[in-house]
Amino acid sequence: MKKAKVAIFGASGYSGEELVKRLSEHPLVELCCLTSRQYAGKKASEVFAWIGRRSPLANLEFIEPDVPSLAPLGIEFAFLALPHGVASEFAVPLLESGIRTLDLSADFRVKDPEVYKYFYHHEHPAPDLLRKSVYGLPEAYRDEIRSARLVACPGCYPTSILIPLLPLIRAKVIRLSSVIVNSLSGVSGAGRKAERDLLFVECNESARPYGLPSHRHLSEIEQELSNAAGESVIIQFAPHLIPLNRGIATTIHADPVTKVAVESLSEVYESAYGSEWFIRLLGSNRYPDIKNVVGTNRLEIAWRVDPRTGRIILMSAEDNLVKGAAGQAIQCFNIMNGWDEALGLGM
Amino acid sequence: MKKAKVAIFGASGYSGEELVKRLSEHPLVELCCLTSRQYAGKKASEVFAWIGRRSPLANLEFIEPDVPSLAPLGIEFAFLALPHGVASEFAVPLLESGIRTLDLSADFRVKDPEVYKYFYHHEHPAPDLLRKSVYGLPEAYRDEIRSARLVACPGCYPTSILIPLLPLIRAKVIRLSSVIVNSLSGVSGAGRKAERDLLFVECNESARPYGLPSHRHLSEIEQELSNAAGESVIIQFAPHLIPLNRGIATTIHADPVTKVAVESLSEVYESAYGSEWFIRLLGSNRYPDIKNVVGTNRLEIAWRVDPRTGRIILMSAEDNLVKGAAGQAIQCFNIMNGWDEALGLGM
Amino acid sequence: MKKAKVAIFGASGYSGEELVKRLSEHPLVELCCLTSRQYAGKKASEVFAWIGRRSPLANLEFIEPDVPSLAPLGIEFAFLALPHGVASEFAVPLLESGIRTLDLSADFRVKDPEVYKYFYHHEHPAPDLLRKSVYGLPEAYRDEIRSARLVACPGCYPTSILIPLLPLIRAKVIRLSSVIVNSLSGVSGAGRKAERDLLFVECNESARPYGLPSHRHLSEIEQELSNAAGESVIIQFAPHLIPLNRGIATTIHADPVTKVAVESLSEVYESAYGSEWFIRLLGSNRYPDIKNVVGTNRLEIAWRVDPRTGRIILMSAEDNLVKGAAGQAIQCFNIMNGWDEALGLGM
Amino acid sequence: MKKAKVAIFGASGYSGEELVKRLSEHPLVELCCLTSRQYAGKKASEVFAWIGRRSPLANLEFIEPDVPSLAPLGIEFAFLALPHGVASEFAVPLLESGIRTLDLSADFRVKDPEVYKYFYHHEHPAPDLLRKSVYGLPEAYRDEIRSARLVACPGCYPTSILIPLLPLIRAKVIRLSSVIVNSLSGVSGAGRKAERDLLFVECNESARPYGLPSHRHLSEIEQELSNAAGESVIIQFAPHLIPLNRGIATTIHADPVTKVAVESLSEVYESAYGSEWFIRLLGSNRYPDIKNVVGTNRLEIAWRVDPRTGRIILMSAEDNLVKGAAGQAIQCFNIMNGWDEALGLGM
Repeated sequence: MKKAKVAIFGASGYSGEELVKRLSEHPLVELCCLTSRQYAGKKASEVFAWIGRRSPLANLEFIEPDVPSLAPLGIEFAFLALPHGVASEFAVPLLESGIRTLDLSADFRVKDPEVYKYFYHHEHPAPDLLRKSVYGLPEAYRDEIRSARLVACPGCYPTSILIPLLPLIRAKVIRLSSVIVNSLSGVSGAGRKAERDLLFVECNESARPYGLPSHRHLSEIEQELSNAAGESVIIQFAPHLIPLNRGIATTIHADPVTKVAVESLSEVYESAYGSEWFIRLLGSNRYPDIKNVVGTNRLEIAWRVDPRTGRIILMSAEDNLVKGAAGQAIQCFNIMNGWDEALGLGM
Repeated sequence: MKKAKVAIFGASGYSGEELVKRLSEHPLVELCCLTSRQYAGKKASEVFAWIGRRSPLANLEFIEPDVPSLAPLGIEFAFLALPHGVASEFAVPLLESGIRTLDLSADFRVKDPEVYKYFYHHEHPAPDLLRKSVYGLPEAYRDEIRSARLVACPGCYPTSILIPLLPLIRAKVIRLSSVIVNSLSGVSGAGRKAERDLLFVECNESARPYGLPSHRHLSEIEQELSNAAGESVIIQFAPHLIPLNRGIATTIHADPVTKVAVESLSEVYESAYGSEWFIRLLGSNRYPDIKNVVGTNRLEIAWRVDPRTGRIILMSAEDNLVKGAAGQAIQCFNIMNGWDEALGLGM
Repeated sequence: MKKAKVAIFGASGYSGEELVKRLSEHPLVELCCLTSRQYAGKKASEVFAWIGRRSPLANLEFIEPDVPSLAPLGIEFAFLALPHGVASEFAVPLLESGIRTLDLSADFRVKDPEVYKYFYHHEHPAPDLLRKSVYGLPEAYRDEIRSARLVACPGCYPTSILIPLLPLIRAKVIRLSSVIVNSLSGVSGAGRKAERDLLFVECNESARPYGLPSHRHLSEIEQELSNAAGESVIIQFAPHLIPLNRGIATTIHADPVTKVAVESLSEVYESAYGSEWFIRLLGSNRYPDIKNVVGTNRLEIAWRVDPRTGRIILMSAEDNLVKGAAGQAIQCFNIMNGWDEALGLGM
Repeated sequence: MKKAKVAIFGASGYSGEELVKRLSEHPLVELCCLTSRQYAGKKASEVFAWIGRRSPLANLEFIEPDVPSLAPLGIEFAFLALPHGVASEFAVPLLESGIRTLDLSADFRVKDPEVYKYFYHHEHPAPDLLRKSVYGLPEAYRDEIRSARLVACPGCYPTSILIPLLPLIRAKVIRLSSVIVNSLSGVSGAGRKAERDLLFVECNESARPYGLPSHRHLSEIEQELSNAAGESVIIQFAPHLIPLNRGIATTIHADPVTKVAVESLSEVYESAYGSEWFIRLLGSNRYPDIKNVVGTNRLEIAWRVDPRTGRIILMSAEDNLVKGAAGQAIQCFNIMNGWDEALGLGM
């Protein structure tokens, strides 16, 4: 099969590095271009110590991000692992050049520019594109992704929250105003920023809530929950930083609309995800654990009904850099190409 | 001032070791006796590598736990850091011998033997004593502790949950059925048990919920919340294991009875805990962090009101082995002696 | 190409699990059989939570280890990830059944039964087989491995020590009596044993030397160094346990026979390993780092000559469970089959 | 007893924070002044989240470092926890103002300005003061410290290396050219610098050598070893960074001048340190472990003689921020005041 020519913009952050690693091993990808303002002119192998001299990446150099100069390379797909607000700058000319674009930032996830402004505190830089972007959650938008020219890949928290919640929302099992979400994230979720709060000594032997009560990811979570519900949904979300490199564990509490048996939850999930390659249903006896999904594109879900309170409890675990970022983007990319969704994503 | 003669039963677990360390440095304690079935006959300094040769513990030996044989030692206070179900065996003869007892196990925390049976899956071994025991939460029962002969020291999770919740429950601010608690615990909370699930490799780079939906600590939490509310309270509680040695971070969500301003929460807390030595009120802008309380007997509380949902969010952090176990027991012990509550507990 | 039928004995330890994971993804392996006394009768997916329902392992069950009962399965290769002393029990009948065997234990690494006895404190159980086994270090014994029927895969420390030292020993650069080795190992190196010293709380925030001065791995290290030198070599070796899951970092000090320039070391290494797929030469400016090799079958080497002392300093890093165990065994297995050495081993 | 009035310069780094914590609890210290360019004008309790509202520090503010403005405060002692090269700027006016100064930087440790220049790559800024400073290792220079006006507190690595080596060097047991040192340091040793290499994700699950072969601390280590030997000593030193917050574990290899029995090492140590409060002799069977000294001012030493090689192996462990920095400085300060050396330093 013909390989796709791919560029990665902003390849030096954690999500970018994960994209580089995985796309360089993808059997149908020709990785043609890595951009980085910080490292332009440097060899990728100087920046990423894991690149061996026999790797296809051994001789690739970082270049300045500049869309027109890419024209001669024949790039067909661009992955943007740029900071929020910067990605949209590049998406516009990329799309105009006919390059299908997968954006890992938050720039095109939220459809409503007003909601974007409320959570991101500035006007959306390219509101026209919002209508054209497809939210890159394959388990929800597989058909739309297939033909999308601009995929807005979901955030790490939203993925861990939406995948367990959407089927129950669609099945009208859950009382919409009752959803309370607690998430625990590894430190790579905060990005590769040289900030004092992210130093080893500050994070190790530490655990702390943050971003309460209005974390930015709520904008896309509530948008998608509202779409599934057919009415506006507002939830409670408490993120926490815990001392591990990768992974998100999410625990969700919600009231059922009417008394519900755990078996009926199992049916909803089996029906929704029974044939999903990357969703692992743990049922009502096992627990998800970050260590079982790290390095994979899998998301685990378990569920309970509390006999004392009647409440539904959902739990999920994922690798924030894989199913929560780079892996999910590659899953979308495979879909856009009509390929096996798991290509280059391991077991 | 005259020193108190003290024995520690079951001194080889994490809470027991913390008691040994702190009581050996307590200015008004004469640590006369350490019991351990496993280590009877061994010197404490062989088991606890941190004991220096100039420590008062340098020559202390572990002995078999046997109440009658303690008589000649003139012990006045016994701390029990024994497993649940074992502590009550020793509490009976200790109290009969006139020794005031501080039990760190769950044996005497729950007043109702039926509740005990529901959560601990066996009959209570000494139901008569339940009436006599005082729940050792100084911020709630200081007066009762003063004259108590048997103090049932609270569990680590309950301390981190009750201290933030009790003032709001008493002030009728919170809708009782709406309380949802998520807690993150360091691995020492699971005890010093040679179990595969607690190995370094199994816990490091792992985070997982467990004990859902009916963790045993709910029995004492709901008892104390119900006492404060004057009616029965049932809550939701989701504990998680995270990869650090010590500490519990708790995040609580609850609906207010009527719309509430964050300032009024601040007033309730200031009034409840403004003069408490070991409670640190962080207010509505800062976040608690395990690393700021590890090694101390302090518990931090912060609070928010979500303008979007109206919900109240409470956050706390403590060291599970200090304010959640040994430190709180020593705080009670100081109260029982009429001493400065902070004696031997540092800043 | 025809797939090889493979059995893994003792599949539930850390090395065994790594074998299961990697062999199940190996394109030319049919994983037919997993044995485990502890888990016989259980599905692999119950024991290894990372096995998804679409994995080829989804329906594989652990069975009792019993060589005769394997006959009908047509097994061609057996990997033994059994404890030292147990592996040899199974190697004998396996070889008699014509099954080529890769042993990850120490049972067949040491050629001299007297040396074995000195370091392992008991008689060797199958001294006849010692002559037949091949030491499974591809970078040293590739030709012998190709036709071997019994491969004794090296220990994790020995791999990290021998690969940097052998070329310099062969080139007569190093004064043999001067070799001093310090190694740091992640906790998985100690195995999946439910021992108190390996608990999370005992290893986290801890670092300690152990096994001094006569760690068992010295037997194979010195055997191989002596073979390379053509005379008896005795070295100094100090292993340490550090708080990470996987990885070994080794630092070696040695006097040169005569004053040596760092460039000549570079030449020796380039000549010895310039075409090795899994050896990464970092030269005299960069440092190896465990995080750059974890999850890979690569071993990194860097070198220095101290201008003040004239001494040579060698540094290496590897993943103890991959290049130090399962990965190296699979590399040998590929060689035994005449396949690409990197098959199933990633980049 | 009269309290000493104390100022801390550069109080916001890890050593500075440890000084603040411990001096604020020291029974004979009045902590009058904290300086920090970064935080001048802020309350200490805003910067250090562990400061409770009842702490003596609750109302202390950071001020700009400015010696003349301190005059009215009556400061008698200044601790300098400033970066190398900056400390000397302040030491000069402090000493001129009659303030006894304990410098935790490297500025006054090395007596020979040429050696300083070789290792620190610039001229010494105040060479006159080098003659006046006393190297603040109480176990070696207790008498000189007593009357010193300027104490140059040793580095963290030097403390962990000198304390085990000095007695054997003085006793002429060790062949001087044979000393090879490997040390493992927790990440706080690198300081509270917002650098990418010190981020949690870069250090966790990582271990790496660095600073080879000429780490700056060699200057003071070799100076002190040479003083003890009465001739020039040059050693080999390999530091490593490992993923824990605090602590240094050091392993030293050395040849004996003539064959030596382990008992004679024990005698040397007993004689040298038998009455030292903060040195813990573990003998020839036990191992030091960072976790047993963290938070204390103790240094543990163990020793072996390898029967196969005849070599001596020494091992030590300390908390790099306590015995390796702030604790040792306070020990010196107590000596300068003629007080109990352990005052404010716990067990």
